[in-house]
Amino acid sequence: MTDSAPLIRITDPADARIAEFTAIRERDLAGRGDRFIAEGRVVLNALLDTPAHDRFILEKLFVLENRLEGLQPVLARLPADVPVYTAERSVMDAAAGFAMHRGILALGRHRPAASLGSFLGNMPAQALLVVGIGLSNHDNMGAIFRNAGVFGADGLLIDSTSCAPLYRKAIRVSVGAALRVPFWRGGDASLLMRALVEHNFVPVGLSPHAGQDISRLRPAARTALVLGSEGAGLPGDLLAGVLNVRIAQAPGMDSLNVATASGIALWQVAQAMNRLS
Amino acid sequence: MTDSAPLIRITDPADARIAEFTAIRERDLAGRGDRFIAEGRVVLNALLDTPAHDRFILEKLFVLENRLEGLQPVLARLPADVPVYTAERSVMDAAAGFAMHRGILALGRHRPAASLGSFLGNMPAQALLVVGIGLSNHDNMGAIFRNAGVFGADGLLIDSTSCAPLYRKAIRVSVGAALRVPFWRGGDASLLMRALVEHNFVPVGLSPHAGQDISRLRPAARTALVLGSEGAGLPGDLLAGVLNVRIAQAPGMDSLNVATASGIALWQVAQAMNRLS
Repeated sequence: MTDSAPLIRITDPADARIAEFTAIRERDLAGRGDRFIAEGRVVLNALLDTPAHDRFILEKLFVLENRLEGLQPVLARLPADVPVYTAERSVMDAAAGFAMHRGILALGRHRPAASLGSFLGNMPAQALLVVGIGLSNHDNMGAIFRNAGVFGADGLLIDSTSCAPLYRKAIRVSVGAALRVPFWRGGDASLLMRALVEHNFVPVGLSPHAGQDISRLRPAARTALVLGSEGAGLPGDLLAGVLNVRIAQAPGMDSLNVATASGIALWQVAQAMNRLS
Repeated sequence: MTDSAPLIRITDPADARIAEFTAIRERDLAGRGDRFIAEGRVVLNALLDTPAHDRFILEKLFVLENRLEGLQPVLARLPADVPVYTAERSVMDAAAGFAMHRGILALGRHRPAASLGSFLGNMPAQALLVVGIGLSNHDNMGAIFRNAGVFGADGLLIDSTSCAPLYRKAIRVSVGAALRVPFWRGGDASLLMRALVEHNFVPVGLSPHAGQDISRLRPAARTALVLGSEGAGLPGDLLAGVLNVRIAQAPGMDSLNVATASGIALWQVAQAMNRLS
């Protein structure tokens, strides 16, 4: 099917060469260090694009037999040393543990930035970051990455209490943006805030209790939008130390979903920074 | 547990009195006319609030035994003729067909507005509506309702090709807003557009290809934001007949999630209509 990558037919769902793809629904929940599973053509394309290329190593593919022909343009992009395993539907479904409607699974490995300092040091002079503190929901994480991509954020910082952006579901919800938008994950809120300030970022905390409306914010050249978890929001001591803004709502209404809040805030701030067209 | 509602203990998962709650994961997907299943305390409270009260009839509750005590304040709000069935976890999980972590299921019935004309005729002189055309994803539907609630929209119109807002998952994602924000569902795009114009609404179509930016829109007293499906967007003939606006994005980026787009558009337009605080 492809001139470069070797195509290997799998007939046994327990074949050791596709072991990373077996029972992925359960194992994905457990996480697995720097390795991750991505699914679908859009996500695979994102994985092959530069600059994702520099941050991720594509280790192997597992593709449904009857999708090979349609995938020819994507497979042609593969490095020659990436094996492509293929199987008929019954074998692939039995291996994955459920019906794989997309029929394309990729095993990737993330090469994180060496340090938070080098991650922030590589940011442009005019930069917009998103910072997530305590974001535990994979759908929200994926949606925040998608918004970061749509509104051209330069990257994300994610504290160690947040879920990993490279869970399969988060990658899928992000429509590949989890592989396109650079991120650094680790540390706690105070470590991230200190590092931001050291690198001349102005952290802006989103809170429904803030006095200032986000539409009046004049963003600094380096701005970091800080988002907290849906239930608890941002910790009080973090909010006390940074500029706070709110998104206006109808009187007496419930709180906004954090991913939607990220979309509104990114749109507003990226516009104020003249980054949109 | 409550002075008003009768409490009935269930010991057999196949008990006919809780038949509507059995195997709900599969049956929910099939829909069931005007009846719907809602879950969790927040959603139950939404169901008991006026004005939801006028639009929905609560028919019965099914509550996990060990949640009864904590639910006392909610149960005290129940009309006297609403039976409360209760069971221990093994019975409830066996009936529902999966582990019911929230332990609260309600069977409700929707009383839709008599007609589209009466629904629109009852809108205030200054009104903001959301119109959904071809929205097939329950998560997006729920999230759009949540945004409609947060930004104080007066209601939603949903064409018959869109999914029903009262699917269990959509209600849950809406955090009860699917029960708080009035909606009318039916007809096709052209029927809805005609009815809107007849009732002095200005329909505004969201499209990434529009020339005008939504931040420059001066909304009419009666404004209807029209959203299309994620993949295809709004039909060309619909867009040709209405004012189109776009949400600015970073150059060359993928499209915005439709629910996030609804959040940005509602925030912007509700602000321009002086409806937020």
